[in-house]
Amino acid sequence: MKKVNVAIVGATGAVGTKILEKLLERNFPVQSIKLLASKRSAGAEITAGGHKYIVEETVPESFEGIDIAFFSAGGSISEKFAHEAVKRGAVVIDNTSAFRMIEDIPLVVPEVNAGALSGHTGIIANPNCSTIQMVTALQPIREKFGLDRIIVSTYQAVSGAGSEAIEELESQSLQFENRSKIEAAILPSASAERHYPIAFNAIPQIDAFDASGYTLEELKMMNETKKIFGDQKLSVSATCVRLPVVTGHSESVYIEIGKEGVSVEELHALLENAPGVVVQDDPSKQLYPMPLFAEGKDEVFVGRIRKDPEHPAGFHLWIVSDNLLKGAALNSVQIAETLLN
Amino acid sequence: MKKVNVAIVGATGAVGTKILEKLLERNFPVQSIKLLASKRSAGAEITAGGHKYIVEETVPESFEGIDIAFFSAGGSISEKFAHEAVKRGAVVIDNTSAFRMIEDIPLVVPEVNAGALSGHTGIIANPNCSTIQMVTALQPIREKFGLDRIIVSTYQAVSGAGSEAIEELESQSLQFENRSKIEAAILPSASAERHYPIAFNAIPQIDAFDASGYTLEELKMMNETKKIFGDQKLSVSATCVRLPVVTGHSESVYIEIGKEGVSVEELHALLENAPGVVVQDDPSKQLYPMPLFAEGKDEVFVGRIRKDPEHPAGFHLWIVSDNLLKGAALNSVQIAETLLN
Repeated sequence: MKKVNVAIVGATGAVGTKILEKLLERNFPVQSIKLLASKRSAGAEITAGGHKYIVEETVPESFEGIDIAFFSAGGSISEKFAHEAVKRGAVVIDNTSAFRMIEDIPLVVPEVNAGALSGHTGIIANPNCSTIQMVTALQPIREKFGLDRIIVSTYQAVSGAGSEAIEELESQSLQFENRSKIEAAILPSASAERHYPIAFNAIPQIDAFDASGYTLEELKMMNETKKIFGDQKLSVSATCVRLPVVTGHSESVYIEIGKEGVSVEELHALLENAPGVVVQDDPSKQLYPMPLFAEGKDEVFVGRIRKDPEHPAGFHLWIVSDNLLKGAALNSVQIAETLLN
Repeated sequence: MKKVNVAIVGATGAVGTKILEKLLERNFPVQSIKLLASKRSAGAEITAGGHKYIVEETVPESFEGIDIAFFSAGGSISEKFAHEAVKRGAVVIDNTSAFRMIEDIPLVVPEVNAGALSGHTGIIANPNCSTIQMVTALQPIREKFGLDRIIVSTYQAVSGAGSEAIEELESQSLQFENRSKIEAAILPSASAERHYPIAFNAIPQIDAFDASGYTLEELKMMNETKKIFGDQKLSVSATCVRLPVVTGHSESVYIEIGKEGVSVEELHALLENAPGVVVQDDPSKQLYPMPLFAEGKDEVFVGRIRKDPEHPAGFHLWIVSDNLLKGAALNSVQIAETLLN
């Protein structure tokens, strides 16, 4: 396989560091890896796979000779530099929300819609973390029986809000234990007017509010799911909540499928053979997915699968995955792997 | 008002201590208060309202002369002693699941179905914490527009599993911060075969599993809601999840009401005038309920009220309340107050 020159924009962030890890771990055919970040981080050293990398400031010229550029440094950085990278011949795999809903930009989860990659024009969008794990788990069900409706409530980890949010949860937990004043400056989001403690709390706001009363995170789940499945008639509504969990998003997902009378066993069998999915579902052994045990794992874990007693085509599932891996870094690297194949 | 002799069974527990506090705080017309617990706790001293109480062991004779007995010491204690109390002339207000689904035993949230108290035969059941806050918030909506369907996902605090679970969360949080071994012995429930850490985790199991794949907590929400609303045709399904929150249950609730075209403003207006309910709902000010701020408060807090864009009669609500107060102790005391009036 042809070896490629790779750049990671946002290389010092929570997701950027995982992209580097996954490229090395999966023996991605790299010729060279360039780590890019803000001017502030330039000069930092990152050691991975026995190699020392020096972080460089992102400038338009950074992308000369780059074949694949992973972006994970926030929407404004992607808007500023993605086209510069494409202009210089790179394919951009963007992990922000900047381009996801642009019609001719593919929004891809390889297990679900790898076909959407064909005919891309230089930028490929990686979906939102909470969307990826949900569509990965629902795809085999949708493919076999059809899918009419999704109602999802999320239980999201702080690492989805970046490294600073992880530090905030840890310092607040200590402040709480010491009965000292809880200081909140990052969550629900650094740019928000008001900040609330996340330690020993649950915050029903992720990202900013839209005029509809939904948060952007909720709208991402609703709109991205329809785009990835290529089904604008699919009904999706979401409630997104941040929890005092470091890594691992969980989702309580209610679905109505396109066929009545399907059994839980049939869904089990489908999911057990689905790529990237692990079924952890045995109430008699108290076996079900939990975020603490999903951390560091590549797969999407599904459990608590049960029929809704109130609807002939209704089911509930509990879907958990590492939001930094399948929800971000791993999916981006998988997109690159699919492109190269 | 006639003064009454009161007993609290389970007086040293998380809920029992709150019942005593609420009786004193609300100037409940007590002649005497007897604190009862297990043999192990007998002799313990509890000081409240400037008065020192000595805890006594619960025996059948404890209920001689008692007018109202609050039970909150687990189902088996209620099964053992509630009838002994009734036999001696007491009215039992039981905060366990022992009697809730027995047909001629009223299951009461005073704001919702105080009328069910008439004709009681000595035992009145206090519903499950997660049920109480949900029905309190939904009652005004149901009364005005009708209610066809509820799909709820819960975010429940550890105090619902008792004082030992609170201690476990606190000690695990310290173990986590110190990078030492996490010890789990209580959650998801002390009697379970397997225990999992709750600190920095989310456990999708509360109480034991039923053969249906639902947990008893989920079935309580489904069955109790129908009984309290007196509507067996109401569709209710639940997913119950335990979080690293000390006190305060949160609920992501999807409802379909009996009328199309109702606005969010109409629901706001209804809930703003509802007894025991406080609306905290202004996205422009990031105002919404959170468990950390509901702790110690009597009310049920409702926010994030929004239309489901996918269903003409669908709405989402985020409902939060102190699970030890309205979810348990306060509701029990309110039942007693309603009986006396």
